[in-house]
Amino acid sequence: MVKESSVPEVVILRLPLYIRALSQMSAEGKTVISSKSLGSRLQITPAQIRKDLSYFGRFGKQGRGYTVDSLIETLTNILGLDRRWNSCVVGVGRLGKAIINYPGFVPEGFKIISAFDNDVNKIGQSVNDIKILPMNMIRSTVEKHDIKIAILAVPATSAQNVITELVDTDIKAILNYAPIAPKVPPTLILRNIDPVLSLQSMTYYLQ
Amino acid sequence: MVKESSVPEVVILRLPLYIRALSQMSAEGKTVISSKSLGSRLQITPAQIRKDLSYFGRFGKQGRGYTVDSLIETLTNILGLDRRWNSCVVGVGRLGKAIINYPGFVPEGFKIISAFDNDVNKIGQSVNDIKILPMNMIRSTVEKHDIKIAILAVPATSAQNVITELVDTDIKAILNYAPIAPKVPPTLILRNIDPVLSLQSMTYYLQ
Repeated sequence: MVKESSVPEVVILRLPLYIRALSQMSAEGKTVISSKSLGSRLQITPAQIRKDLSYFGRFGKQGRGYTVDSLIETLTNILGLDRRWNSCVVGVGRLGKAIINYPGFVPEGFKIISAFDNDVNKIGQSVNDIKILPMNMIRSTVEKHDIKIAILAVPATSAQNVITELVDTDIKAILNYAPIAPKVPPTLILRNIDPVLSLQSMTYYLQ
Repeated sequence: MVKESSVPEVVILRLPLYIRALSQMSAEGKTVISSKSLGSRLQITPAQIRKDLSYFGRFGKQGRGYTVDSLIETLTNILGLDRRWNSCVVGVGRLGKAIINYPGFVPEGFKIISAFDNDVNKIGQSVNDIKILPMNMIRSTVEKHDIKIAILAVPATSAQNVITELVDTDIKAILNYAPIAPKVPPTLILRNIDPVLSLQSMTYYLQ
């Protein structure tokens, strides 16, 4: 089962941004920072940052700011990013291949272990040393390799069906690249990557 | 210049979601819907939906709900989605190619017109009938084809420099696939597509 949480989801969504900004500041040699300087980098108000962090206890001292490295470590622990998360890619078209070859996952602890497709011409081929397996092997493969995350790169028309297949496996989180908003049961976490939504929220400012 | 707005950006970010859900409901034959049924589909509270829409005037009648097609049309006009937006891709690696070939943009009014790369081995080649041009042709090409949107698929190490080059062109909106949060001047709109951030906001629930 997926963990219940009393922390609002929008707060959880911001924590990775905090970690990233803090890591940049740490790399720049900063050891202590204020909520104002962190907020300025992220275009989030200092009050919002203080409120978000308050869900997880007391950080920093009044007027002294936050210790950068210790805040990074705490947030990393809170999000469960102090371990490796095995992942798989479902759908190995152009996008799926780009995802498998994307170098940004491993340094952050996300390792793509397996790839699945239902195209018999692709099954058995390898992408970046990962062999493409048939869809009917998802359940056993996911169990064997302790894979909890599936990255979905199938066409929009297949996404909902694939998700229905994933419900019966050990997959607990889905990162969906298909341009639809699929329905998932409460036992699954879903994030949609959707370039069209992002584009549509920019044109408002261009008129 | 980019339009100033008194509407909170988070509200603008939700409007495309409303349009998409309403379009699905329209396709299902629904003509009038309540904020409750729209909210249920999007996992957003009815009060939030009513508040968001209130920024743009009065929609629906007390207890009668919203007329689906007329709300779609109004939101489409508000976001400037009743026209075509010419776009370009900067960086034509595996990801850039997947983006150029992505069939989901054109039906939503976003047409990729040009592609740019600084790799001499790629310049002159074509992807999906779009010829890859050298970076020094961005400014003139963007002007000639009325391109306002750039989709960035360059490595993280190049993203900030490319954005600096774009500041002096007619590009006003950037959809950034590079896994960094680049700084942009207030004359540019930026949206980051970042799979790692999405993954990092899911692991919290998996522990």
